[in-house]
Amino acid sequence: MPSGHTVVAFDTELATLHRKIAEMGGLAEEQLMRAMEALVSRDENLAGSIIARDTEIDRGEAEVEALAVRVLALRQPMAKDLRQVIAALKISTNLERVGDFASNCAKRVMALSQVPPAGPMKSLNRMGITTAGMVHDVVKAYVDEDYDLAMAVRDRDAEVDAVYTSLFRELLTYMMESPQQITACTHLMFIAKNLERIGDHATNVAETVCFLVRGRLPGEERLKEDLSSFTVVNPGDRPGDRPGDRNDRVG
Amino acid sequence: MPSGHTVVAFDTELATLHRKIAEMGGLAEEQLMRAMEALVSRDENLAGSIIARDTEIDRGEAEVEALAVRVLALRQPMAKDLRQVIAALKISTNLERVGDFASNCAKRVMALSQVPPAGPMKSLNRMGITTAGMVHDVVKAYVDEDYDLAMAVRDRDAEVDAVYTSLFRELLTYMMESPQQITACTHLMFIAKNLERIGDHATNVAETVCFLVRGRLPGEERLKEDLSSFTVVNPGDRPGDRPGDRNDRVG
Repeated sequence: MPSGHTVVAFDTELATLHRKIAEMGGLAEEQLMRAMEALVSRDENLAGSIIARDTEIDRGEAEVEALAVRVLALRQPMAKDLRQVIAALKISTNLERVGDFASNCAKRVMALSQVPPAGPMKSLNRMGITTAGMVHDVVKAYVDEDYDLAMAVRDRDAEVDAVYTSLFRELLTYMMESPQQITACTHLMFIAKNLERIGDHATNVAETVCFLVRGRLPGEERLKEDLSSFTVVNPGDRPGDRPGDRNDRVG
Repeated sequence: MPSGHTVVAFDTELATLHRKIAEMGGLAEEQLMRAMEALVSRDENLAGSIIARDTEIDRGEAEVEALAVRVLALRQPMAKDLRQVIAALKISTNLERVGDFASNCAKRVMALSQVPPAGPMKSLNRMGITTAGMVHDVVKAYVDEDYDLAMAVRDRDAEVDAVYTSLFRELLTYMMESPQQITACTHLMFIAKNLERIGDHATNVAETVCFLVRGRLPGEERLKEDLSSFTVVNPGDRPGDRPGDRNDRVG
């Protein structure tokens, strides 16, 4: 039977885990929003500061992991307490990846600033804002243990996947129009992929919040709407062509 | 003080975790090798079977996680035993991602089989074989708790990153040569990116083996050689141009 002192120490440790995750989430969201700002304004200095700051999120993950392992060893938590620690481990890994993707977007801003502007920047920026909103909401869902908010974030991922598939096709078409746009559009395509992956990580966090609150993962298999891997665009296709108009889906 | 019965049960559970991870690793490696085979032979049927089999690796991860959480709750392991459980959790997540990347390569084989063959297939195939070898070796390092082998895998990742950066530049050049190659080369670029990420995940597993065996992560920061995010290629550059010849690195 744990003593009162142990219980207080454990509560403090859990609160620290909570706080660190919330900080990581806030920073990841900020890094992503700033990466979109750097992209739109072609701001290399801003991009450089985003890249430099990524280590802060990496450190956050390392701290959460060290504390979580310590808590498991010293407190041997059970049931909901154990889920709290497991959830912190999993969520910090996902947020660290969100930070990596934001930083990678900033790296590509460096390359993009050397070539003429090209591509559907507005759609890309909007996609960035959507995924930053997902990161914001899912961290709030974690802090408040808000199951409904977590599931709402998870539902939004299908929209992000659909936008990504459409952007992928649009960027292929731009590239075919002019070789001058190929380098730019390729980096924009990887930025779009980064954002799509951030949506996936927000979804992972949402599912972990479900595990935390209800003790199990959400049952229903999530519909995967990213069809870009199957996409074919041929020279002569126009950016307005919709997926499904041609033989662009397989299997 | 745990009873003899509890100790035996715990040993059995750890052995099960070990076996499940080894199985996941073997399957991930096989899926990757088969994806390369499908790529080279433009075999849509093989690609389809790889995609279908990905759920098997997903199930492996879910089983490892369920068992790990159960072991933490029931056995409350400490020290090395605790690290065994944490390591199993982390490694299964990484192997599940390797499976995802192999499956994504197979999806892109579906798209590639609809367009004329293009791009540096040999280099790509070689990169696939290298990363499959890393997955093989790092799972062996985990099973044998072989620190040196794990560190050797980690060291090989720099080579994979360098090959990826070079392939990225080469593919951009191919795309500029002919719009007919753009769809194919874009999918090949994402396949190369998948392989580069598989190298990263093998490296993550190597670092987890270090944590398992020595109780801490490897100290020295790993050198990141993937410079593709900074790469610019202009129309007129030839595939043979080396990184560094032009203004292709930033920062």
